[in-house]
Amino acid sequence: MQRYFVKPTLKTGSQFELDSNVSKHWLQVMRGVPGDQAEFVDGTETLYLGQLNEDHSVTVVKPLANHVELPIKVTILSGLPKQEKAEWIVQKATEMGADTICFFGADWSVAKWQPNKLSKKLTRLQKIAQGAAEQAHRTHIPTVRYFNTLKQAITELKFDHLLVAYEEAAKQGEQAQLVKLLSQTKTGEQLTAVFGPEGGVSPAEMQFLEQNQATVAGLGPRILRTETAPLYFLAAVSTMLELQ
Amino acid sequence: MQRYFVKPTLKTGSQFELDSNVSKHWLQVMRGVPGDQAEFVDGTETLYLGQLNEDHSVTVVKPLANHVELPIKVTILSGLPKQEKAEWIVQKATEMGADTICFFGADWSVAKWQPNKLSKKLTRLQKIAQGAAEQAHRTHIPTVRYFNTLKQAITELKFDHLLVAYEEAAKQGEQAQLVKLLSQTKTGEQLTAVFGPEGGVSPAEMQFLEQNQATVAGLGPRILRTETAPLYFLAAVSTMLELQ
Repeated sequence: MQRYFVKPTLKTGSQFELDSNVSKHWLQVMRGVPGDQAEFVDGTETLYLGQLNEDHSVTVVKPLANHVELPIKVTILSGLPKQEKAEWIVQKATEMGADTICFFGADWSVAKWQPNKLSKKLTRLQKIAQGAAEQAHRTHIPTVRYFNTLKQAITELKFDHLLVAYEEAAKQGEQAQLVKLLSQTKTGEQLTAVFGPEGGVSPAEMQFLEQNQATVAGLGPRILRTETAPLYFLAAVSTMLELQ
Repeated sequence: MQRYFVKPTLKTGSQFELDSNVSKHWLQVMRGVPGDQAEFVDGTETLYLGQLNEDHSVTVVKPLANHVELPIKVTILSGLPKQEKAEWIVQKATEMGADTICFFGADWSVAKWQPNKLSKKLTRLQKIAQGAAEQAHRTHIPTVRYFNTLKQAITELKFDHLLVAYEEAAKQGEQAQLVKLLSQTKTGEQLTAVFGPEGGVSPAEMQFLEQNQATVAGLGPRILRTETAPLYFLAAVSTMLELQ
């Protein structure tokens, strides 16, 4: 059954009109007819069952149970990567349950986002996040953000826990910090996880993170690319907090 | 320090000649000079420290400790996906520790690999696996294989455990089977994990897998794309068997 995100707050028994995007997908692409049902995530991220009426409005049938979101809110904070990797990270991190996905201009980022193109890029990435959230059957669409520097990101973001995935730690065999940190989290808390760009996190950035009480963790013994590391991390969070 | 894969079996104190690929990378790209050192993985997947001599041969200095491989051998068996996804899967599954990466012509695969182009494709994918293994600092390069059908793959592959990641199981909230299976594995055992193509695993394929005692598992509550699911799985294996 399809799932659509809608803006208003829904209520069992009420009716609402489909916006043009949803209407086009359900009625034309999926050839929906009156009596057909679909799932709707409303503006409060609550999931409902909806049924298509003769006049193409939708009646809210009932709320649906849904436990699709990670128990902690994970912000992925990645040093800006090259080329289309940002799109890939947004799509896959959304599939894997990230709450927010942020990029920052890292000391060692090769790529740069020009200020005049930033708005267009973020709009595109936000669309990718929405599409991925729908396909993953999530009730939350991650917000995509950009910060010029790591300092600005850390200053502005709110979090209960801060972690940096550090390649050098992995090379030294560090494998305990990630599990230790995750076992200390409580449901509903916010965790920001920092990942370096292709060149890694710079010494100045590491020093700044350590001053901000960041947990320095290896992600298993293999060296992961900048676009792979956030996915390992999100899968580890899911494995530890959802499956066990 | 760079790491290179070499074919012969090495021995502390012995000398060997660099092949042209390694020679080109170390001497030209990295501008290596006599006295410089690098890591070498030999034909038995043992890691050694090597030092460059005046005549550009290499002396094997000593073996190095290395625990970079997953404790169980995971074969990723994926229904053939569309376009370049096979390359992404090979690269990222190698980063994440897969032992073998196989594709099969699934009932619902949209993509098809023509027999006359198969050899060229596999050669290319094998190269991607080697590059990813080197960058990930692994000692094992996954073999990439192709089977015309799931039946052929299951008949030919050897494994102690068989699992299929099933979207319908995830939708029904199944979250226990993956953890249960992984906690039953012993170091050195072989596990084959089956993933459907974009369309999913067909009923006939599911029936065949169940007849072969496959564990049917959800990978967390979110629906993952065909190229993302194997990465979640490998990260879950690492989280459970390496970090804990």
